[in-house]
Amino acid sequence: MKKVVKFGGSSLASAEQFKKVGAIIRADGTRRYVVPSAPGKRFSEDTKVTDLLYACYRAANEEIFQKVLAEIKSRYQEIIDGLELSLSLEEDFKILEDNFRKQIGEEYAASRGEYLNGKIMAAYLGYTFVDPAEMIRFDGNGQFDAEITEALVAKRLKDVTEAVVPGFYGAKENGEIKTFSRGGSDITGSIIAGALDVELYENWTDVSGVMVTDPRIIPNPKSIDTITYRELRELSYMGATVLHEDAIFPVRKAGIPINIKNTNAPEEDGTMIVEDTCKKPPYTITGIAGKKGFCSLFIEKSMMNAEIGFGRKVLQVLEEQGISFEHIPSGIDTMTIYIHQDEFAEKEQQVISGIHRAVNPDYMELETDLALIAIVGRGMRSNRGTAARIFAALAHANINVRMIDQGSSELNVIVGVKDEDFEPAIRAIYDIFVETQI
Amino acid sequence: MKKVVKFGGSSLASAEQFKKVGAIIRADGTRRYVVPSAPGKRFSEDTKVTDLLYACYRAANEEIFQKVLAEIKSRYQEIIDGLELSLSLEEDFKILEDNFRKQIGEEYAASRGEYLNGKIMAAYLGYTFVDPAEMIRFDGNGQFDAEITEALVAKRLKDVTEAVVPGFYGAKENGEIKTFSRGGSDITGSIIAGALDVELYENWTDVSGVMVTDPRIIPNPKSIDTITYRELRELSYMGATVLHEDAIFPVRKAGIPINIKNTNAPEEDGTMIVEDTCKKPPYTITGIAGKKGFCSLFIEKSMMNAEIGFGRKVLQVLEEQGISFEHIPSGIDTMTIYIHQDEFAEKEQQVISGIHRAVNPDYMELETDLALIAIVGRGMRSNRGTAARIFAALAHANINVRMIDQGSSELNVIVGVKDEDFEPAIRAIYDIFVETQI
Repeated sequence: MKKVVKFGGSSLASAEQFKKVGAIIRADGTRRYVVPSAPGKRFSEDTKVTDLLYACYRAANEEIFQKVLAEIKSRYQEIIDGLELSLSLEEDFKILEDNFRKQIGEEYAASRGEYLNGKIMAAYLGYTFVDPAEMIRFDGNGQFDAEITEALVAKRLKDVTEAVVPGFYGAKENGEIKTFSRGGSDITGSIIAGALDVELYENWTDVSGVMVTDPRIIPNPKSIDTITYRELRELSYMGATVLHEDAIFPVRKAGIPINIKNTNAPEEDGTMIVEDTCKKPPYTITGIAGKKGFCSLFIEKSMMNAEIGFGRKVLQVLEEQGISFEHIPSGIDTMTIYIHQDEFAEKEQQVISGIHRAVNPDYMELETDLALIAIVGRGMRSNRGTAARIFAALAHANINVRMIDQGSSELNVIVGVKDEDFEPAIRAIYDIFVETQI
Repeated sequence: MKKVVKFGGSSLASAEQFKKVGAIIRADGTRRYVVPSAPGKRFSEDTKVTDLLYACYRAANEEIFQKVLAEIKSRYQEIIDGLELSLSLEEDFKILEDNFRKQIGEEYAASRGEYLNGKIMAAYLGYTFVDPAEMIRFDGNGQFDAEITEALVAKRLKDVTEAVVPGFYGAKENGEIKTFSRGGSDITGSIIAGALDVELYENWTDVSGVMVTDPRIIPNPKSIDTITYRELRELSYMGATVLHEDAIFPVRKAGIPINIKNTNAPEEDGTMIVEDTCKKPPYTITGIAGKKGFCSLFIEKSMMNAEIGFGRKVLQVLEEQGISFEHIPSGIDTMTIYIHQDEFAEKEQQVISGIHRAVNPDYMELETDLALIAIVGRGMRSNRGTAARIFAALAHANINVRMIDQGSSELNVIVGVKDEDFEPAIRAIYDIFVETQI
C-alpha cells in the first residue's frame, strides 16, 4: 500500500506548517512519495518564494539582486532553523546564483522554489531526495512526454521506498529545466501517482476539499464529500477552480482516486475524486459553477426546421471565423447560439453578415452580458423534480431564465441568465438544494 | 366593412346545417364573400361527397357508375329540397357525367363537390356564384400562382358586392381544374380574404376554435381565446391540427385576423388568430402540442467544447444523409441530437459511422421512442416561474424529463420524454396551467 502526497505552497510556507505536514506524513506509513510545492504566503500580504525567484532572476545583473537573493535565502533558513535541521543549502545557492547570472532560463529560476523546498522536506522526513529533472521529461519542443516520463519514473523509484520529488518541473533530455503551468505541482503528483500505480493520490491544500460553489459568492460553502472525475470536469469547465485538467488525466487514466485534504484540518475527510461511486451525494446536486461574459445570437427563419443543412451552414460561418459555440438551444423556427463575448466581439459583423449570406434568416438579434450556470450532479439522474426545484428557486428570486439546456446525460442542467442575475441565481440554487434542502 | 366566411364540410352536410349557415350569414351584413366546402358527413358512418366523387370518377366505365352518381345527386337534391329551392342541377350533372366518362382528370372530379355546393349556396343566399376556375390560377407545372391569382380575384370581385366562391380548387390558364391539398377550402378563403383586403376572415367549422391541447388526450379541452400566428405555427409544427400552413400565409401577409368559429354554436367567440395582441391570455400558456416518434443520438467527447468545427462536422454528416434535426441540447463535452425516428431508421448505421469518421467521439448512444412536447405561449415571457411550474407538474406525475430546450424567444419550452410518458406529461401540464391554475 502506498500513496503519493502533494502539499501546496501554503502548507509549506513556514516551519510551523512543515511540522503539520511532517505529522500528517508520519501518521500514515503509506504516505511514501511526497511532492512539495515552493513556500507560499505566510500571511496575506506576503510574497510567494516563486515570485521572489522570478524577480531575482530578472534582476540578476542589477544592484538589487543580492537583496532579493538574501530574502529568498532567509525564507528557507527560517524553515530550516524552525525545524532544527542541520541542513545547509549553501552549495545549492552558489549554483543557483551562478546560473542566474548566466541567465540560463526563467523556468530554471522558477523551479528552484520547489527544488530547495524538496531538499528541506527530504532532510526533515529522512526520505530520499529525487530530482524530477531526472525523470519528468519534456521533448525538444518543450512538450511534456507522458510515455517516456512514465517509464523513467517507474524505473527511478522502483527501489526507492520513500522519496521526496519536488513538484512543478522536469527537464528536456539535454538537462534544460522546463516547468508546467502555474499550480503545476498538482501535475507532478498526478504523474508520479499514475506511474507508480499507487492506491491514492492525496492533494493537501488549505481548504477542506472541493466546495459546492464559489466561496466568493457563498461564504463558507459546504464542501463536496465525493465527486466523480466527470462532475469535476464539468464544474471546472464552467469556472470552478479546482485541479488543472492536466493534473487529473494521469491518475484518471490509471483509475486512481484523488483525495483533496486540508493541511490545517487533517481530521476532516476532504473530497474524494473518483471514477464512479455508488455513494449517494448528501444533496441532489454535487456542485454549481458558472461564468459571465457570454453573448447570444438569436436566429429566426420561417420553416427553418424543415431546411436540411440550416444548422450546419450557420455553424460553418462560426467555424470560418474561428469561433467556438457553447450551446445552441432551439425552438420552432428559431435557434440561439451562445458564444464567448470576448471571442465574438471583434468578429461580430463578419459573423452576422456571414449568416445572412449563408441562410438568409428572417430576423437576428444579438444579446450581450449573459452568464451561463451549470448545475452538476450524478444524483440528478435518480431524483425527479430537480429541474422543478431549480426553476422554482430562480422564479422565487425573480430571476429571468434566458436559456435552458439539458441533454440526455442528465448530469447537468445549463441555465442562462443576465450577468447581473449571476450571483443571485447561484445563491438561490445553493439555498434550495444545500441550505433548506426542500 | 366586409368579411370572407368559409364553411367546412360538416357545416354544409345537410339542409339543416345549410339553414344554420344561412342564419349566420344573414345575421351580419358584412359576411359578403362565402367560401363553401363540399357536403361532409351527416353522421359518423356517413361518406363525404368528395369521397363519393372520387369513387364515381374511378368507376366511370363500370356498371356501378350510375349507382354512385345517383347517390351523389340525391345528396344534393336532399339539400335543395330541404331548403325548398327551385334550383335544378340537371344541366351541371350532365356536363359532369360527360367529363367523368372522358376521364378529364381526378382533380376535376374532386372539385365538383364544392362547385355544386356553391351553386346551392348562391341560390339559397341570393348571392352571385363565381367559379374559382376563373380567378384562382395554377401555372403550367401545377403550382399555385399567388401573384396572378391576387390580381384576378381583385378584378373579378371588384364590383360583386356579395358572392359565393367554392373552395378547394382553381384552374390552369388552359382551363384544366387543379385542387389544393385536402382541406384546401381554408386556402381558398384565405386567398380571397387577402386579395380583397377584408377586415376579417371567418373560418366556420364544427369546433369552438383552437383547443389548448389535443382532445384525444384531454377530453373537452378549453379553447383558445386569442392566439398569434406565431404561436399557432409553433403548435401546428408540433402536431396540433389546425389550419394548413398555406391557409395562413395569404391573410397573414395582408395582416388580416382569422376567426375560427363553430357553426353549431355561433354565439361562442371562437378563436381569434392575430399577428400580435396586447390581450393577456387567460392562462400563462396558450397551448400544448407534441409528437411521438423521435430518437436521440447522444455524443460525448472530452474537450468537445473547445474543438472548433465539432458541431458543424456532426451536422454535416446528417446533411449528407438528408436528415434534418429537431434540437441539439448540449451539456459539457456532450451533445444530443433529436431526429425523427422514421427518417433516421434506415440510415442509422451510415450516420453513426459517419460521425465516428468525422469527429471520433469517445462514446455514442442511441435512444428511441421519445416524444417532444412544446409548451407555447406569449404569456410565458412575462410570467416568471413558468419553467418551475412545468417541471413541478412533470415531477409530480413521476415523469422523467429526458431533454429541456428553451432559447431566447421565450415563447416556448420544448421538453423531451419517453413515448409512454407523452400523454401523462401533457395531462400534467394541462392540469397545472389550465385546470388548477396554481
